[in-house]
Amino acid sequence: MIYVVFVEPETPGNIGFLARTMKNFGLRDMVLINPCQLENDSYYKAMHAREIVSNRQEYSSLEEFIKINKIDFAVGTTGTAGGSYNIPRIAVTPENLAQNLNERGNIALIFGREGDGLTNQELELCDVVVSIPTHDVYPILNITHAAAIIFYELFKTEKDYPVEEIDEASVEEKQDLIRDMNEVLDHLDYPDHKKKNASTVFRRVMGRAFISGREAHTLKGVFRRIKERI
Amino acid sequence: MIYVVFVEPETPGNIGFLARTMKNFGLRDMVLINPCQLENDSYYKAMHAREIVSNRQEYSSLEEFIKINKIDFAVGTTGTAGGSYNIPRIAVTPENLAQNLNERGNIALIFGREGDGLTNQELELCDVVVSIPTHDVYPILNITHAAAIIFYELFKTEKDYPVEEIDEASVEEKQDLIRDMNEVLDHLDYPDHKKKNASTVFRRVMGRAFISGREAHTLKGVFRRIKERI
Repeated sequence: MIYVVFVEPETPGNIGFLARTMKNFGLRDMVLINPCQLENDSYYKAMHAREIVSNRQEYSSLEEFIKINKIDFAVGTTGTAGGSYNIPRIAVTPENLAQNLNERGNIALIFGREGDGLTNQELELCDVVVSIPTHDVYPILNITHAAAIIFYELFKTEKDYPVEEIDEASVEEKQDLIRDMNEVLDHLDYPDHKKKNASTVFRRVMGRAFISGREAHTLKGVFRRIKERI
Repeated sequence: MIYVVFVEPETPGNIGFLARTMKNFGLRDMVLINPCQLENDSYYKAMHAREIVSNRQEYSSLEEFIKINKIDFAVGTTGTAGGSYNIPRIAVTPENLAQNLNERGNIALIFGREGDGLTNQELELCDVVVSIPTHDVYPILNITHAAAIIFYELFKTEKDYPVEEIDEASVEEKQDLIRDMNEVLDHLDYPDHKKKNASTVFRRVMGRAFISGREAHTLKGVFRRIKERI
């Protein structure tokens, strides 16, 4: 199941544009976090996808949505993919996401405010962050145009490889590993902010790596040994 | 040089959205064919790409634009890629276009009216027609979202293969071939509408095939022989 999440939309019409684009690529489940007041334009711009706007869910925070809907894999989006100094924003391309996304489980594709995007705090809730390659002179896409490109890549890949099954690590296996890593970090006498950074990096690498079940098993063994030693 | 052509835009804001998306992917040259009256929204929606709207060219017909600007390769877009019975609308994907487009010469990426797209007559002026793979339930994208996806694919490919030079047939070689083919058709006692169809098919196949210079040379020889015989 894929949710499309729009965090604090500011312009009613954009909700409609997003709904239309969702339907163009076979997506149906819209979630709004603390949105502006919806107006006629939210339905009008949706054209033949008005039912997506009508059937939306609303939550007051991203964290609440993720918890209540048992999201297994949260995909954040950013127009300002940082350098390596800005850890929450190291990003994969839409193509990379599409080629590796495991569509089992509950997935959330999360888009931020028109003006400011997602906050660092919100990005830290994400397992992976996607950024669209753009021209340096003007890298910031309109939010619904960015969404269209990401939906398109996901849809395209789905069509190209409709039945391919890869032996990917399950969500539980990955979360297990992340927990292991955090336990290890707890024993390393790191200052809190360094520990948090390291944990974020690890979670994000797990997200980008799309590791196999076998690899997850191997890593699990490594962590067990580390934990025994420290 | 790549022109982005919007034929008879009906909504002033869409001109702005198109300009913004163009700049996001490094495109600058906007052409409007017989547009609606531009309004503040045409500039406002462009955000940091207002100069693209200001610097636009306007023409009263697509044919006039193609002639005056010596367009070598015209790319049409359609949301309703027909079956093989609808010859002008057999379409390639954006990916296929991006992988094969020869960026030398004057290229036009042509988008149609919000409501009705491009007419068959306009599509017949195009060397190739692009259509975005979408979900069957609602295949019609908003025009500027469709544009964003096509620009993105072109930009992505450019980044992936920035220096690859393929021995592709020049625009002149291709036009030569098309002329040869038309001359051959003239001698085949075809009814006019069949001749026109055949010519369109040939031109479109040339467009999709992105044939090499060597292949063009070979075909030229074939046509010469055919013309000698008939």
